[in-house]
Amino acid sequence: MLPTLADVHSAADVLRGVATVTPLLCCAKLDGVTGGKLRVKAECLQRFGAFKFRGAYHKIAKLAPEVRARGVIAFSSGNHAGAVAAAARMFGIPAVVVMPSDAPRVKIEAVKERGAELVLYDRLRDDREAIGKRLAEERGLALVKPFDDAEIIAGQGTMGLEIAAELTPDLVLVPASGGGLVAGIALALPQSKVYAVEPEGHADIARSLATGTIQKNEPGVRSFCDALMAERMGELPFAIARTHLAGALAISDAAVRNAMRFAFRYLRLVLEPGGAIALAAALEGAVDLKGKSAVIVASGGNVDPELFARVLIGD
Amino acid sequence: MLPTLADVHSAADVLRGVATVTPLLCCAKLDGVTGGKLRVKAECLQRFGAFKFRGAYHKIAKLAPEVRARGVIAFSSGNHAGAVAAAARMFGIPAVVVMPSDAPRVKIEAVKERGAELVLYDRLRDDREAIGKRLAEERGLALVKPFDDAEIIAGQGTMGLEIAAELTPDLVLVPASGGGLVAGIALALPQSKVYAVEPEGHADIARSLATGTIQKNEPGVRSFCDALMAERMGELPFAIARTHLAGALAISDAAVRNAMRFAFRYLRLVLEPGGAIALAAALEGAVDLKGKSAVIVASGGNVDPELFARVLIGD
Repeated sequence: MLPTLADVHSAADVLRGVATVTPLLCCAKLDGVTGGKLRVKAECLQRFGAFKFRGAYHKIAKLAPEVRARGVIAFSSGNHAGAVAAAARMFGIPAVVVMPSDAPRVKIEAVKERGAELVLYDRLRDDREAIGKRLAEERGLALVKPFDDAEIIAGQGTMGLEIAAELTPDLVLVPASGGGLVAGIALALPQSKVYAVEPEGHADIARSLATGTIQKNEPGVRSFCDALMAERMGELPFAIARTHLAGALAISDAAVRNAMRFAFRYLRLVLEPGGAIALAAALEGAVDLKGKSAVIVASGGNVDPELFARVLIGD
Repeated sequence: MLPTLADVHSAADVLRGVATVTPLLCCAKLDGVTGGKLRVKAECLQRFGAFKFRGAYHKIAKLAPEVRARGVIAFSSGNHAGAVAAAARMFGIPAVVVMPSDAPRVKIEAVKERGAELVLYDRLRDDREAIGKRLAEERGLALVKPFDDAEIIAGQGTMGLEIAAELTPDLVLVPASGGGLVAGIALALPQSKVYAVEPEGHADIARSLATGTIQKNEPGVRSFCDALMAERMGELPFAIARTHLAGALAISDAAVRNAMRFAFRYLRLVLEPGGAIALAAALEGAVDLKGKSAVIVASGGNVDPELFARVLIGD
């Protein structure tokens, strides 16, 4: 069953007082560059530094109490892992998180700091599904999927309601990979043109929308945007995207680096690569924003300091 | 005449819809480290990246129209300069800004970008008062002082009203140098213990409070916190501080660097050195926050990328 706008409103009730209502920042410089009237949804200021907390908390809150009490398990290369660990701790339940060993160090440490049990696997050698399935069965853990889940999508969509409470923008640009966030926002803002923004070389969403069937990325292809490396969109996000999205935009790594520097300087925000990709699309003119109102989603800010330093000095 | 709480409310009316109401962020990690219930006032997200916009805009708005039309002049090593340039542009009036040539590059460029006329002087050789006086007289410009002015103090104090609208904290820690911000906040939050936080080696506020008269810093002493290098407090801020402050805390450069890294990682905020010093005081335990509610003012985020990169990698 696809989630609806009513489900997003119900998720907002669950998250009220728990998730941060993140600010919609103005930026004179950004308006000057694009010719539009833009607001940046600074979701890197969400608790634990990414939008993922919305969906993870909502999903765990909706589990039957006796199921929830046994604990949860998640697979993720980063922000979903940290969000599940944080939400599980808030509910006082055990969490097991299965992460690739090459995930950003800050994301691995965040999971440990939140008291979750961390299982690292080798992205090339190991079968994470098998590892996770065994652990889930042995301990009776509930799987918290990163995006292909109606309650996750509804949770992420609460960001769209926060935007709708302030304005109905002509356009919304949203970082996308599995598609949970962009689908949720599209449900919440039916009158805006909502675009998915994805990395060049990992642009499966554009191909999926064009062909009408879910397309995969090349196996093993990496991206500078570590948070945007899902192998393919989820079924539910795709079903929503087909009818609700205005399109998908593919953005280069160089443009993402430039957007991270822009956010540092003109917004004083720390954005991780995947969190900066929608801002990059705006700065590159990937869609025409002249005379338009637009919201740019800055979805996360968990990035290793060494990488951020290299981006700042243009390395 | 000292400004009053009523003046701060009047400034808030002027700034409504013009200045950003900056968020009060929660941070589980910060609560864990300090044992308190802390909120970070993320004023680096203010328009143009620092609290200075509040006072500068308010002051210029309050000038008589025929005076304002001739233009304004300001002396500043950074954020006040950029704020006056930005506010002057919003009013469509000329601005001349007199800055030391060793000010952070981003702060000098910000003044240029906002279309102000920039006059650089050598901190050791030139007499900035003489330069400014000559320009002001020649062109009939109105001087916008950085802190020793009732309307500037009232403008900065609007930040305190935004805090008061959400909570009455036990303590408030505020970066301080000339004292305009900390005095304004103290007016707005009479029931909280408000502390000025200043750099070690530049700790004139503590000495001024202890002796009951305004003390100067050693001439020529520099600080890592480029925004906190006033030679001495203003007369008006000092008069308010004597009766309204709970004390002043002196913090080391090393602690400030550590706080900048903490803000990067756990708050996803870019803080300049001076903007991070109150957070440093909290992390260092300069006052006991255990079991207390406290607001930490993160007052600005305009910092050169090369410096920020060096801080991130621990250089």
